[in-house]
Amino acid sequence: MAPSDLKPITVYWRPQVPNPTKVVIILEELGVPYKGEFIEHADLKQPAFESVNPNGRVPAIHDPNTNITLWESGAIVTYLIDQYDTEKKLTYDTFPEKYHLVQWQHFQASGHGPYLGQAAWFLMFHPEQIDSAKERYIKETQRVVKVLDKWLEGKDSLVGDKLTYADLSFVAWNAAIGYFMSGRPKDEWEPETQFPNFFRWQNSMLARPSVQKASTLAKVEDVHL
Amino acid sequence: MAPSDLKPITVYWRPQVPNPTKVVIILEELGVPYKGEFIEHADLKQPAFESVNPNGRVPAIHDPNTNITLWESGAIVTYLIDQYDTEKKLTYDTFPEKYHLVQWQHFQASGHGPYLGQAAWFLMFHPEQIDSAKERYIKETQRVVKVLDKWLEGKDSLVGDKLTYADLSFVAWNAAIGYFMSGRPKDEWEPETQFPNFFRWQNSMLARPSVQKASTLAKVEDVHL
Repeated sequence: MAPSDLKPITVYWRPQVPNPTKVVIILEELGVPYKGEFIEHADLKQPAFESVNPNGRVPAIHDPNTNITLWESGAIVTYLIDQYDTEKKLTYDTFPEKYHLVQWQHFQASGHGPYLGQAAWFLMFHPEQIDSAKERYIKETQRVVKVLDKWLEGKDSLVGDKLTYADLSFVAWNAAIGYFMSGRPKDEWEPETQFPNFFRWQNSMLARPSVQKASTLAKVEDVHL
Repeated sequence: MAPSDLKPITVYWRPQVPNPTKVVIILEELGVPYKGEFIEHADLKQPAFESVNPNGRVPAIHDPNTNITLWESGAIVTYLIDQYDTEKKLTYDTFPEKYHLVQWQHFQASGHGPYLGQAAWFLMFHPEQIDSAKERYIKETQRVVKVLDKWLEGKDSLVGDKLTYADLSFVAWNAAIGYFMSGRPKDEWEPETQFPNFFRWQNSMLARPSVQKASTLAKVEDVHL
């Protein structure tokens, strides 16, 4: 089905949160129509939204074209790529590239996002100032970025020779680092000099129209094609 | 290829860590031969193992039958199921079940394992006793288990009518909860009464020979069929 024939996919979301942005970027890249369903923070753990996602978190989607309801940003991206990336613009179906994409996607979802999220929590939201917890998660953020930086030496993408859904899964969380590290000593986060391959890769993603559109969306009424 | 014709898959691992156990359970379930390559904690972030997994964590695998090297437990499970679960013993290839399995697998890998891991860290390993951090992660552990418990009301498995790789991805981390909560007030973790559906589901998985074998492996020389 051509994208223009599709009914818009409902994306349950909140703005300026990395995981919903991850999904919007893929929809933008693939030209699949969507509409936003804004969920207030206070409504995440209420029965109406828990009937969509029993885990009470965004993003979730409902695709009226196939009648699936799905949550977990990584699973949603997997579904969208399988279903709508028929030209393999953002993926590989060759072996072993196909599984290396899954590997980096899982690293993002389980080893990158959650640790950056805890850093953000202890730096910005925790009711106590706990230096040893801040230090733990800042160090893990730096370590994970270093893993990416080393891997990207001499490369423009994580797998193969094009940006894929695996790369694009990282961009919104990467962009959050500068925000939650903004009050810290400068030498703790200077990606341009400390992680130059990471910095180049991240900038190449930030320059894409899909990422610019998804990142600047701030009002729910903007969330549609 | 019949399992008996396969060369053993190398599993880079450490005992009594949930994520490698997750992979061993799937290998046991599918009857795929494997051999363990024990990685000392001090060697995880050294060049020899980083040439296998640049993220310096276990598990990783090398499959000599296809010549793939892969890390991230969720990605390894996806690969093993695609490659070796030809009879769909632990999966569904129907729609939408296929994607609901991916969804629960991602919930385990990104919303269950990492938070339980932080609970274990602050309860057992952090150099300071920080009550507010312990409370944060104990509450998240209880919340995530409650999500599973509610979903499993009247059901024996997360998706469809059989246990799948998605269910089995949870069992080793679930089993760790009793361990890291053992010094806490009893009313903080009484799954039999607080989370009866979760408790029934978890026990049904613990009773499987694959889980029993993977869970009791303590020495690296035991890790082969």
